[in-house]
Amino acid sequence: MRNLAVRADRIDADISALAALTDPGRPWTRRAFTPRFAEGRSFLERAMTAAGLETRIDAAGNLIGRRRGDGGKPGTILVGSHSDTVPDGGRFDGIAGVVAGLEIVRALRDRGITLAHDLEVIDCLSEEVSIFGVSCVGSRAAAGVLSPAWLDRTADGLSLRAGIAAVGGDPDRLALAVRDDLRAFLELHIEQGPVLEAEQRDIGIVTTIAGITRVEIRVEGRADHAGTTPMTARADALVAAAALVLDVRALALALANRGPGHFAATVGEFRIEPGAANVVPSSARLLIDARAEHRPDMVAFLDQLAIRAAAVAGGHGVHIPTPDLVSDNHPTPADPALLDEITAAAETVGVRHRRMASGAGHDMAWFARVAPAAMVFVPCRGGRSHNAEEWAESDAIALGTEVLFETILRLDRGV
Amino acid sequence: MRNLAVRADRIDADISALAALTDPGRPWTRRAFTPRFAEGRSFLERAMTAAGLETRIDAAGNLIGRRRGDGGKPGTILVGSHSDTVPDGGRFDGIAGVVAGLEIVRALRDRGITLAHDLEVIDCLSEEVSIFGVSCVGSRAAAGVLSPAWLDRTADGLSLRAGIAAVGGDPDRLALAVRDDLRAFLELHIEQGPVLEAEQRDIGIVTTIAGITRVEIRVEGRADHAGTTPMTARADALVAAAALVLDVRALALALANRGPGHFAATVGEFRIEPGAANVVPSSARLLIDARAEHRPDMVAFLDQLAIRAAAVAGGHGVHIPTPDLVSDNHPTPADPALLDEITAAAETVGVRHRRMASGAGHDMAWFARVAPAAMVFVPCRGGRSHNAEEWAESDAIALGTEVLFETILRLDRGV
Repeated sequence: MRNLAVRADRIDADISALAALTDPGRPWTRRAFTPRFAEGRSFLERAMTAAGLETRIDAAGNLIGRRRGDGGKPGTILVGSHSDTVPDGGRFDGIAGVVAGLEIVRALRDRGITLAHDLEVIDCLSEEVSIFGVSCVGSRAAAGVLSPAWLDRTADGLSLRAGIAAVGGDPDRLALAVRDDLRAFLELHIEQGPVLEAEQRDIGIVTTIAGITRVEIRVEGRADHAGTTPMTARADALVAAAALVLDVRALALALANRGPGHFAATVGEFRIEPGAANVVPSSARLLIDARAEHRPDMVAFLDQLAIRAAAVAGGHGVHIPTPDLVSDNHPTPADPALLDEITAAAETVGVRHRRMASGAGHDMAWFARVAPAAMVFVPCRGGRSHNAEEWAESDAIALGTEVLFETILRLDRGV
Repeated sequence: MRNLAVRADRIDADISALAALTDPGRPWTRRAFTPRFAEGRSFLERAMTAAGLETRIDAAGNLIGRRRGDGGKPGTILVGSHSDTVPDGGRFDGIAGVVAGLEIVRALRDRGITLAHDLEVIDCLSEEVSIFGVSCVGSRAAAGVLSPAWLDRTADGLSLRAGIAAVGGDPDRLALAVRDDLRAFLELHIEQGPVLEAEQRDIGIVTTIAGITRVEIRVEGRADHAGTTPMTARADALVAAAALVLDVRALALALANRGPGHFAATVGEFRIEPGAANVVPSSARLLIDARAEHRPDMVAFLDQLAIRAAAVAGGHGVHIPTPDLVSDNHPTPADPALLDEITAAAETVGVRHRRMASGAGHDMAWFARVAPAAMVFVPCRGGRSHNAEEWAESDAIALGTEVLFETILRLDRGV
């Protein structure tokens, strides 16, 4: 392997500094639209400026640092990811990709390289599901597909519109955030799965981002006295919702086992009302997250889910309105030419690589709508992610960063 | 039926006035330890004073109005119930019994009757499960069995100790609230079940209060990325908890169907962590409420529950610590002699009556530890309770109140 242009120690320092900005007692939590998130943004803005970037917040609340090229070639090369986390989420998910972008800029400066293209580093707003129940706010807006209706979603007395404005965006002029100027979008991310570590590969070159569909189901039962209402005379929303949770798992397990592509489904949000010990639950709300590498698996899942929901309603004497498709995104292939450039760059750097699908969604899936887009994975310990134990070695992140550095040089030299 | 000494119009006026003191937009909610509850207490205190009662708050936070007798007979006759509600709970549960006590006092005054016994009306503190997760705070303390450890339970930044102090109690001297002076405790309550209405009975004379056992189960799984973690590599706490919810229902249904006594079990509180759409749930907490007219049914339920919990843990790769018995109260029989007095009173008044068990817990179960205690049920519409639709006719409540009025006269005349 050649000597690296990028430096693992600087990557480590940035990731450690951001990790320190966590909700106290709840590592590692820096959810979008929180004061902690704003502290992370301040750190990144200073780091971008220190790296020689000209910073701005776009209309969608994305933080962007710009490095002008020599004007020789049109189009901006954009590299980055996101700095927000899930609750109790990790130090690397998203963060590694933003820091990789920063480090590429620093490595270019170290070597005195001026690109023909403009180069930008981006911290996309709210890639994770925020309190507003939606994800990829910044990258959807950059692709021109952020639903205006979402701006009116509220949580904790705040609207998403107000949340975007609070981070410095201009939610009433989201069109300004749409990117029609991109030569390429590149993202580095931890794999969040066990494959690279198990196979001792340095990087994964992502061919497809699994489609992500979110379905909300509401179960409407009847509140009754828990002591006096006979077991046979109840419309217990929790019992019906519990049956649905098991159905979701059984359906997903069957599709995953059938193969060939990745399939998973999870009930990650689950609430009942009124939530008192001696009252039969009157209602329940489930939010299902389903992922499919192949669209027909998702179609089959949704069809079966509707059938199961109707069966549960009938069996438990509750009402279950038609499941609500909160979001429904098809699988997204990466740009084939860009995949070839990354592969060539990986060979130049001399890392062990493989192509693979991503079960997780990423900002790259949205940028793929408006630009050639691709991403690389770096291994993480045990495939663990979205929890406090999430871990990736700085040296491993540096290898992926070096591959993107080399990819950018190749793109810049190309036609 | 004879002309009544008590007046349905005054009962109706009091119940309506208390119903108006609800959390806005959430009828009918007046939970213990809330500002709304304090407003209800103020109303009751004024009503007691207007009825000629001398009011006080005892060390446990119970509101008591006292009417002195002529001193001819020892022991206080205590009548009442509670004014707090469950969330979204009803206008009558508890309230009817407090108002019945008030109306009995007014009827005695209307008729110029002085009793040989002292008579008190009580509004017991927090009969319903409050934010502190426990019930019957006031009546447990009156029986001398309020666990001191409970005082340190906290919720919303408040301890139960502070909550009791805030309503005017003296939580560090709870022994002062213990009643060793009672000739009898009498309680009127809506049935909260469908039997009296279906059989067109005016009152139920309660022979036994079902035992109530509360069990907390914690499920400890592992947080993982919902998109990338294979279905076969998860420790999903929600899936395991859902299986337990269905097991609880199946066990309770089997015991209820086997008979002969009443049995019911409900999971009324259910929460998961972290509760984010794209994270596999890492933990869940269930609070089970189980009721048995016959103790052996409860023992069988708890034995089976432990077996099921172990099976679920094994089957879903999660850890489930031994279920925690939050509370475990055996069935409580009413005082047989008092039941005979109530039956005789019902005959004198001329109402249609029957004996029955109570599936619901009541303050009376605690007073039965320190005094002859009994209660009467009045019918409620459709057996519905603990919800906004809960309804009982003032005329029906008046009939039950009249029976207690007559019972008190009989007790006062007796030895």
